[in-house]
Amino acid sequence: MIKTVKELAEHINGQIIGDETLKISGAATLSEAGEGDVTFLANMKYEKELQSTAASVVVVGETVESKGLTLIRCKDPYYSFMQVVVLLHGHREHEPVGISPKSSVSDSAKIGKNADIHDFTTISSNAVIGDNTTIYPNCTIGPGTRIGNDCIIFPNVTVYDGCTIGDRVTIHSGSIIGQDGFGYATHDGVHHKIPQIGGVIIEDDVEIGANCSIDRATLGNTVIGHGTKMSNQVAIGHNTTVGHDSLLVAQTGIAGSVHVGHHCIFGGQAGVVGHITIGNGVRVSAQAGVTNNLEDGQIVAGSPALPITQAKRAMMVMKDLPELRKKIRELDKTLRHFTKDNHLDT
Amino acid sequence: MIKTVKELAEHINGQIIGDETLKISGAATLSEAGEGDVTFLANMKYEKELQSTAASVVVVGETVESKGLTLIRCKDPYYSFMQVVVLLHGHREHEPVGISPKSSVSDSAKIGKNADIHDFTTISSNAVIGDNTTIYPNCTIGPGTRIGNDCIIFPNVTVYDGCTIGDRVTIHSGSIIGQDGFGYATHDGVHHKIPQIGGVIIEDDVEIGANCSIDRATLGNTVIGHGTKMSNQVAIGHNTTVGHDSLLVAQTGIAGSVHVGHHCIFGGQAGVVGHITIGNGVRVSAQAGVTNNLEDGQIVAGSPALPITQAKRAMMVMKDLPELRKKIRELDKTLRHFTKDNHLDT
Amino acid sequence: MIKTVKELAEHINGQIIGDETLKISGAATLSEAGEGDVTFLANMKYEKELQSTAASVVVVGETVESKGLTLIRCKDPYYSFMQVVVLLHGHREHEPVGISPKSSVSDSAKIGKNADIHDFTTISSNAVIGDNTTIYPNCTIGPGTRIGNDCIIFPNVTVYDGCTIGDRVTIHSGSIIGQDGFGYATHDGVHHKIPQIGGVIIEDDVEIGANCSIDRATLGNTVIGHGTKMSNQVAIGHNTTVGHDSLLVAQTGIAGSVHVGHHCIFGGQAGVVGHITIGNGVRVSAQAGVTNNLEDGQIVAGSPALPITQAKRAMMVMKDLPELRKKIRELDKTLRHFTKDNHLDT
Repeated sequence: MIKTVKELAEHINGQIIGDETLKISGAATLSEAGEGDVTFLANMKYEKELQSTAASVVVVGETVESKGLTLIRCKDPYYSFMQVVVLLHGHREHEPVGISPKSSVSDSAKIGKNADIHDFTTISSNAVIGDNTTIYPNCTIGPGTRIGNDCIIFPNVTVYDGCTIGDRVTIHSGSIIGQDGFGYATHDGVHHKIPQIGGVIIEDDVEIGANCSIDRATLGNTVIGHGTKMSNQVAIGHNTTVGHDSLLVAQTGIAGSVHVGHHCIFGGQAGVVGHITIGNGVRVSAQAGVTNNLEDGQIVAGSPALPITQAKRAMMVMKDLPELRKKIRELDKTLRHFTKDNHLDT
Repeated sequence: MIKTVKELAEHINGQIIGDETLKISGAATLSEAGEGDVTFLANMKYEKELQSTAASVVVVGETVESKGLTLIRCKDPYYSFMQVVVLLHGHREHEPVGISPKSSVSDSAKIGKNADIHDFTTISSNAVIGDNTTIYPNCTIGPGTRIGNDCIIFPNVTVYDGCTIGDRVTIHSGSIIGQDGFGYATHDGVHHKIPQIGGVIIEDDVEIGANCSIDRATLGNTVIGHGTKMSNQVAIGHNTTVGHDSLLVAQTGIAGSVHVGHHCIFGGQAGVVGHITIGNGVRVSAQAGVTNNLEDGQIVAGSPALPITQAKRAMMVMKDLPELRKKIRELDKTLRHFTKDNHLDT
Repeated sequence: MIKTVKELAEHINGQIIGDETLKISGAATLSEAGEGDVTFLANMKYEKELQSTAASVVVVGETVESKGLTLIRCKDPYYSFMQVVVLLHGHREHEPVGISPKSSVSDSAKIGKNADIHDFTTISSNAVIGDNTTIYPNCTIGPGTRIGNDCIIFPNVTVYDGCTIGDRVTIHSGSIIGQDGFGYATHDGVHHKIPQIGGVIIEDDVEIGANCSIDRATLGNTVIGHGTKMSNQVAIGHNTTVGHDSLLVAQTGIAGSVHVGHHCIFGGQAGVVGHITIGNGVRVSAQAGVTNNLEDGQIVAGSPALPITQAKRAMMVMKDLPELRKKIRELDKTLRHFTKDNHLDT
């Protein structure tokens, strides 16, 4: 689709600096954009790339200077750029296939209007699939599981029995929802399986990356709050609840029975031990290991995790440890020597 | 199923304190249980929840006081609670489907009595599937692989060629058994693949979580000992052997050619380097990185891993490092100043 | 297949010390080899096992002494052993199945000569599959995706739409290529999805382990350079480029927009933050966390990662931290005491 700079600016309610008649057909990063492309500048760290970009127009914040480039100024350039990309390219489209004759749909399952069930996908007994939901090939939706409207389930996803998925949920390939939690009662050295009779609730507007694993609850439900987004290979333990609008970067692992608040952010490979409570708006750095409850708004780093300023200061000293040890030894030597040679009391 | 407190107590050989006629139909945690539910108290950390629980009966240790609640006292309350949950709810049941006409079973494969092969599952040439084993949709069992009796293989599992799975093994969705180990001979900067001609042996009563990956051996076998349980996204390298009755929490990674003893426990995101030996009954904390052999019974934490008391003490000091550095600088300054001003020998 | 020591030596251009007529039919490690087996000694750490091995012949370096064993001496014993294993056992063979009637191939897809499309695999519209490529069961190749010649795609792999896979690429089971990158524009506390309109390019001779996840680019391409090998559960973020002939050990995670050079090695569970540049020939230790650009040839360890000698020295001191703190307190006390008791100026 081709749009003029004017059309783009109107769409995002931005102010044009430069040529409003330029035609835009693509979007790219500052360094990769060429003629006919829109790009954006949200992080001022990249401001110098404005001088070298070949983009036709740049979506920028309200105070950025043009330097000869055509700009569209707006309040939130990254958000506005997202809107422009959606205008130009749209979201991925899903070919309507209906209920494939090569799928396997139980007689007792209910399939919504305009839902697409692709080849080699199994909809088990008493499962319910909402309207306009697309389930790609090689998925299994377990007995009694309910999937809402307007969901997209990519290939090779398994949702076990008795789970509930909201509306507008996207699950990427290879993710597994509702496998048994890791619960055993150990007796005389043998691990006896505790039946995992709970379920999983994935609320509306959640997006789950590839190869994630969300345990079903032992009793009750594991819950992922609405609007929360996970990247790839995230693991969530049984009975854990993650609040709404949180972000979990790739390879994050949260153990069982954790209560995570809303609007939390977990960096890549972050870990959280079981049975703790994490407040709202908490940020956990990549590779951090959270071992204690965290209050609202805390920002932590390190393993075990500390408040970030404390962690960063400690990490700064880490590399100087050998030198510090040397200095301590010198001080010790000096002091011994000194008290001895000067016949002073200690 | 509904049982009386008396029936539950008899089942677990426990002592009733209170009303043996109460009817129990469900199980829940102390905080979530309501009327008609049984719950348990195993960790005395939660003892105060006895006062607020709405459960009808609580399975507790032998010395716990009733505070007006109906209790069932027993030696190992978590184990006994597990038995009660199994009595009330049973384990997951698997609908018998036989060999689905929508599966693909090689003429040379052997399928045991009462085995269930679901839609879109492939049983390759010369594979052997035991009696009463259920293989859910979209699995592939490779050529010559043998799976024992009473196994449950959830959807989207791949077991490569030439692997051996024992009896009563459960493999959750998305797990992969027997992919090639990571073996290359690097010559002139190019990595040449070493054929991975070994296999994988999963012994009896193993449970494997979702999205795990267990490499086949280069030569010989990668072995997971009987009764060992893995949570999700565990990765096991080629030629590694894990002893019996061990527990591997989610996202644990064990490199190749490691020998792990029996009854070991690995916390979440723990890592183990290749070519080392870990004794029996070893405990590795979450996110620890094991880089050396460990003796029987060692408990380690940290990356690189240290004995846990040493690691905990070191971690305690970590946060004080900036202060310690400051103190060292002060001492240094004082001492210099001091020796100079007092014309003392050093 | 049975070969004589002479035939093996000729194949790898090695020098025989001992009996060239011995018959060899298998390969095994030093400790596991028996009569009729070839083994190797590449790491001199295992030299003492030469005395106890039951192997018939050992492939060794040019200066290793025989101690009564038959040896084949050569420059690069591990590489030569690999060649011997290939000679004896070959690489895995793939039964030719053609295009299975139980697969689902779009009318607009193009399938190369001698390609094998197994049961329950979907080749979507406008996808192109090269000659001699094997795609095992339960895979989905998305619309418009191109896969080169001589590739092997194991079961349960998903390659999303618009990706490009080179020649001689191997993808193990459960890996996902081309899922949406983790990109949202957060506005008023809600995360709005940024369309991920880029793709993934996997160059020639790449091997990808089980359950890996490689994000498609937001714009442009995520690229895995030729000859690069990944173990299991590796996660690569959107727009990241990994240079050729690199090695990524299991559970490594590289965030988005990272530029990694060629011939890099990442240890298990290593992590790399987004938007940085890593030079050529860089080595990142297991569990390290790379947070800054790295120059060519750097070797780093720790989280956050430091040059390895610095990191190792710091880690050595870590365990002594409690003792160092104690020493500092003593010094402080001594010094205070001392200045006070001796009426000296400070």
